[in-house]
Amino acid sequence: MNPVEAGADEVRNIFYRANFIRDLDIRLDKFAEGLCETSLVVQERLRQQHGFVHGGVIATLADHTAGGAARSVSGTKDVLTVEFKINYLRPASGDRLRCSATVLRAGKTAIVAEALVYANNAGEEVLVAKLTETLFVADDPKARAG
Amino acid sequence: MNPVEAGADEVRNIFYRANFIRDLDIRLDKFAEGLCETSLVVQERLRQQHGFVHGGVIATLADHTAGGAARSVSGTKDVLTVEFKINYLRPASGDRLRCSATVLRAGKTAIVAEALVYANNAGEEVLVAKLTETLFVADDPKARAG
Amino acid sequence: MNPVEAGADEVRNIFYRANFIRDLDIRLDKFAEGLCETSLVVQERLRQQHGFVHGGVIATLADHTAGGAARSVSGTKDVLTVEFKINYLRPASGDRLRCSATVLRAGKTAIVAEALVYANNAGEEVLVAKLTETLFVADDPKARAG
Amino acid sequence: MNPVEAGADEVRNIFYRANFIRDLDIRLDKFAEGLCETSLVVQERLRQQHGFVHGGVIATLADHTAGGAARSVSGTKDVLTVEFKINYLRPASGDRLRCSATVLRAGKTAIVAEALVYANNAGEEVLVAKLTETLFVADDPKARAG
Repeated sequence: MNPVEAGADEVRNIFYRANFIRDLDIRLDKFAEGLCETSLVVQERLRQQHGFVHGGVIATLADHTAGGAARSVSGTKDVLTVEFKINYLRPASGDRLRCSATVLRAGKTAIVAEALVYANNAGEEVLVAKLTETLFVADDPKARAG
Repeated sequence: MNPVEAGADEVRNIFYRANFIRDLDIRLDKFAEGLCETSLVVQERLRQQHGFVHGGVIATLADHTAGGAARSVSGTKDVLTVEFKINYLRPASGDRLRCSATVLRAGKTAIVAEALVYANNAGEEVLVAKLTETLFVADDPKARAG
Repeated sequence: MNPVEAGADEVRNIFYRANFIRDLDIRLDKFAEGLCETSLVVQERLRQQHGFVHGGVIATLADHTAGGAARSVSGTKDVLTVEFKINYLRPASGDRLRCSATVLRAGKTAIVAEALVYANNAGEEVLVAKLTETLFVADDPKARAG
Repeated sequence: MNPVEAGADEVRNIFYRANFIRDLDIRLDKFAEGLCETSLVVQERLRQQHGFVHGGVIATLADHTAGGAARSVSGTKDVLTVEFKINYLRPASGDRLRCSATVLRAGKTAIVAEALVYANNAGEEVLVAKLTETLFVADDPKARAG
């Protein structure tokens, strides 16, 4: 396996072994060098008081997908979220979220990734949030997913 | 009821009517002018692949608690999260999270709030994350919770 | 004049009347709906202790250019920076900075804009920073540049 | 000299050797473990189009002071700003700015610092901005100020 394929295997593994991601049922749709795409069918329990998808769900999806994109450029090393900023652009109505994350800068010790979250409402996709995230590349192999 | 008491009632209501908050079982512990405190018992399904609490859970807790603090200074008006930034300071181990949020600036159209998240591991509390959030005060009464 | 041309006039005016922008000698290169481009020749006094352009100069350039982009979609109303986040991606060497800002979301009360800053080193352009910014649309005409 | 005193010497040096900081005339007022305080007399050329201090000046002051606080806990190693977020809370009128920065988390590879900026208007101090910043600790001694 080349590094990207090995990374894809590990990212699929992380998606499976991360309880909260499995609980939200976030799916890995695409994984390539510098790119990660995911989606989520909105269960009723993920909504907030006005019936929109809760901001915490959107942040979780965006953070995890940005982490996947970062993992695609970190070789065999694990990545850790140091911080992120998210802008909520529109209320997320509808029953499906899609997220696409790309790497803005891949350094040896730090990676910066961005994620766009779209809500699908009756067949029309709307951009609902944008995240920018800084991740560290873990040196310690024990810190790796495993 | 004075405005803070009325706000407390509404915030309790929001905590109850927001499915995702009820799903995570986030509890409102304290509510006063410019302050909101919450807590959460960590269910196994809220963890990530290394056994720590997932960053998305921490962000949701911090965002919602900052929103509660903002709601305590917005009179009868609803508040909406425009954006937030969160720094993850340490891995969140243990079985309980506590969050304390305060208002940094209460404007007529925008409120800035901050939230600190602590993890309780075997009786010892550790600061695991800090969030800064901008919220808008909703003019439209139809946008209100309710 | 159409609104974008009127906005361009006002943005040129702001660039001229904002002392600090004139002091740094930031130039307006392009202005269109949802877009603003600027540049700056690096004076020696704008560097930091390692000889790179100081982060504060880069932040000022990015913030001001994002404000220009926001102003291109706010009609006759002024815009105010509420907050921004900037990631420094590489050290800014060389003698010229270029900035390109676009609008991510133009709401009635809030605008979200992004700016990319490039450094020109011996003819080669490198991406050195990325900013995301939230601006308010000022309702009060007295708050307008004037 | 103990590490904090050595750090203070180096920070004073950085303030002196960083052209842009000298150009803005930012002064180091206090330096202790986990703390840095600075101030700036507002020259007319540092204002924006409405006569307030330009946001870029405020960001530069806050970033540099947060860097000073981080430097107080990094031993002999240099620190580099990875990213920051700043919230502008009120317009900065008056003729003097004061900044106080503290360390929120001092890790081996990353430091998180916060800075508060106050404007002094006719003897009264007002909080005008708050910054949160992530810095890397530079391993390479060649990256050190020097």
